[in-house]
Amino acid sequence: MSPAEVTDLNGRGVLMAIGGGEDKIKERRVLTHFFNLAGSQQAHIAVIPAASTQPDQTGELYQALFRNLGVTEIEVFHIRSRADAQDPGRVAALRQVSAIFLSGGNQLRLMSLLGGTLMAQAIRRLNANGVAVAGTSAGASALSQHMIAFGRAGEWPSQRMVQLTPGLGLSNRVVIDQHFQNRGRTGRLLIAVAYNPFLIGLGIDEDTAAVLDPQNRLHIIGRSSVVVVDGSELDYTNVGDVQRHRAVAMTNIRLHVLTDGFSYDLMSRQVEPFLP
Amino acid sequence: MSPAEVTDLNGRGVLMAIGGGEDKIKERRVLTHFFNLAGSQQAHIAVIPAASTQPDQTGELYQALFRNLGVTEIEVFHIRSRADAQDPGRVAALRQVSAIFLSGGNQLRLMSLLGGTLMAQAIRRLNANGVAVAGTSAGASALSQHMIAFGRAGEWPSQRMVQLTPGLGLSNRVVIDQHFQNRGRTGRLLIAVAYNPFLIGLGIDEDTAAVLDPQNRLHIIGRSSVVVVDGSELDYTNVGDVQRHRAVAMTNIRLHVLTDGFSYDLMSRQVEPFLP
Repeated sequence: MSPAEVTDLNGRGVLMAIGGGEDKIKERRVLTHFFNLAGSQQAHIAVIPAASTQPDQTGELYQALFRNLGVTEIEVFHIRSRADAQDPGRVAALRQVSAIFLSGGNQLRLMSLLGGTLMAQAIRRLNANGVAVAGTSAGASALSQHMIAFGRAGEWPSQRMVQLTPGLGLSNRVVIDQHFQNRGRTGRLLIAVAYNPFLIGLGIDEDTAAVLDPQNRLHIIGRSSVVVVDGSELDYTNVGDVQRHRAVAMTNIRLHVLTDGFSYDLMSRQVEPFLP
Repeated sequence: MSPAEVTDLNGRGVLMAIGGGEDKIKERRVLTHFFNLAGSQQAHIAVIPAASTQPDQTGELYQALFRNLGVTEIEVFHIRSRADAQDPGRVAALRQVSAIFLSGGNQLRLMSLLGGTLMAQAIRRLNANGVAVAGTSAGASALSQHMIAFGRAGEWPSQRMVQLTPGLGLSNRVVIDQHFQNRGRTGRLLIAVAYNPFLIGLGIDEDTAAVLDPQNRLHIIGRSSVVVVDGSELDYTNVGDVQRHRAVAMTNIRLHVLTDGFSYDLMSRQVEPFLP
């Protein structure tokens, strides 16, 4: 019933949270990283485009992208209803893959389709047993236990700026935001951390990924940056008192802006020495 | 990092979610149940009034109530800042108690003070090791992993009606609402379940409690009822698509209205035979 402490993490699969807008034509650094995680030419990739309003086109797009990288086994799982997500045939097929890719779209659509179904359970179990799971944009948000569903843009925190709902629950320690700089989401990520500073906030830029390894270390990959919001030293916030949409105070937030090559340990909350 | 499956639950402490407004003068059925859980005359009770805007009065009130029931060891833990919640002295004192009682007030104030602190960690560990934790009103909401922070009243679900934020995380399977009938909260509990139907919604009335035992069975105690919202058969919701504050559709919700003496198994999602 309670989310227990996990002691042996080494068997878990990597999580890859991509900030959306990953390069699909040129260097393809982010997609190539996922390709390698999935097993390179031996990969068997599941694409789940259920967050998208145009799942057919989205599914075909990623199928083509992974095929161009050299993957032969790519399966698109269309989940158009909760019944689809309870279908034992689809679940059995999913259990054969080496990695799972969740597309962008609307993370609340994704979770209201998947939440509490056999498919969601299978994704959790596969990841616990070593299968890598990547999500871009909406798919990145949905990876964590507490998911940013929607919110308002703005650089500094104000009340009711962000809406949290339950995600897939593949990590219970982070809360993930995407398209971070492009859509002005610093304020809402700070609010999400103020709500309960146990969470570490990750603001992931476009064409950039935070890769969480089984030892709970984050590695930054890609063109721009990942902002890490650490509230462990927060000594004051009035988020429990402020009315309506007024500004929210927070003191002693620790922030890191990490670019390609940096790592961050979620347990010690320390940036690792950068060795270029 | 991931909330793992817990297999051996028998060592856990009971959770008691009280819908607020518990009888303090006459039969005191709900408070007496907590008194018994805490060890009756041998109880050593911690009262945490941090959710309250008047923590001194609230602390004194519950101290007097438990003293009247026959408890001699009652300690009020005042948490006025996040620094208080990091104080090793308070945490060491908390480790001596046999049961913990969280007052009403504002659950977001409570969690923005406690979240990610040594005190929150101690509450989780104490509960995992057998210490009963009760919460009334705001304190009941805060028991679960996904907490209803605030919302709008209304009988039927509409978009943006409820705000979820991270709670204490003592149960990851339920989402708890309180003052349920008196404040017209059916709509927002349905929305909370629609977000991710993995969650079981509990709408707890005043002077009524849902008591969660270590085997994940709920027992209803008190004057009114607990509404259980089971979304496991939900086959359609448009919560991911509806704009602004429009009405949200949900099909095949299973509801139970349970009164004193009923039990409900959270794992099988079955109401247990009622033996009056």
